[in-house]
Amino acid sequence: MAKALALAEKAYALGEFPVGAVIADDEGAIIGEGYNLREANASPLGHAEITAIEKAAGLLKNRRLDLCTIYVTLEPCLMCAGAIMQARLKRLVYGAYAPKTGAVTSVVGVYDFPFGYKPMVRGGVLETDCSALLSKFGEDLRSDIRENPLEETNGQV
Amino acid sequence: MAKALALAEKAYALGEFPVGAVIADDEGAIIGEGYNLREANASPLGHAEITAIEKAAGLLKNRRLDLCTIYVTLEPCLMCAGAIMQARLKRLVYGAYAPKTGAVTSVVGVYDFPFGYKPMVRGGVLETDCSALLSKFGEDLRSDIRENPLEETNGQV
Repeated sequence: MAKALALAEKAYALGEFPVGAVIADDEGAIIGEGYNLREANASPLGHAEITAIEKAAGLLKNRRLDLCTIYVTLEPCLMCAGAIMQARLKRLVYGAYAPKTGAVTSVVGVYDFPFGYKPMVRGGVLETDCSALLSKFGEDLRSDIRENPLEETNGQV
Repeated sequence: MAKALALAEKAYALGEFPVGAVIADDEGAIIGEGYNLREANASPLGHAEITAIEKAAGLLKNRRLDLCTIYVTLEPCLMCAGAIMQARLKRLVYGAYAPKTGAVTSVVGVYDFPFGYKPMVRGGVLETDCSALLSKFGEDLRSDIRENPLEETNGQV
């Protein structure tokens, strides 16, 4: 998770919503990593988990990552929870909870539905550090808006 | 939907689970298309909708496709329903229902949860044609297994 947090810091440095993700194989070797680049890439698919899954599957040349664990600094959204399901990841470990977008615990628990897939899940790992970075990003955004009140924003982080 | 079905035929010709998707802008112009290439690309992200969204967002250089409609031959899975949410597509039109994987109507209705996003949804469009192609694929697979009973399969289409 410390590595995922370091990747989230990279996203933060670029002005992106700071989320990072790492995929480790069953021996603990890192085989995929990613950080949010949704604004830089102007892509709705630019979440950290998607990039990490793409890289891990590319490395293994296998669309199934059955033995692997994904570590992500924020509870996955619906798309990423679904991508984790598609990749058949064995385990999901996440940091901060996402009260408005979290699809694993917070808004809904998608793995409780009968899709025939249920990873091992652990939330709240390094939660304080993961949350602190997200809060810092939110504060930066709010002070930007205060300093430039006439600039157009879409009201979302 | 006819165009999406033609794309699904391309996937079928390649031995892929036959699903196709098209994204049209508010004037009806096609700005993104895709078909399932999960096996060819060995990628859990290789679904038709993901490719179509990636192309449309790339063309518009915008991560939001608010005014657009996605047409897909099969009810989206969790990942794709989530990607449609991330892209903020205005409307989703799909063909066949997916009793085991469908995240819009069949297994669960994800847009009924309080994520703050609810596209216009219409299912069952050209359902007979979309379903027929999926059934044909399933039959091919079963006869392959009958003819080569000792070959390893993962038990999934």
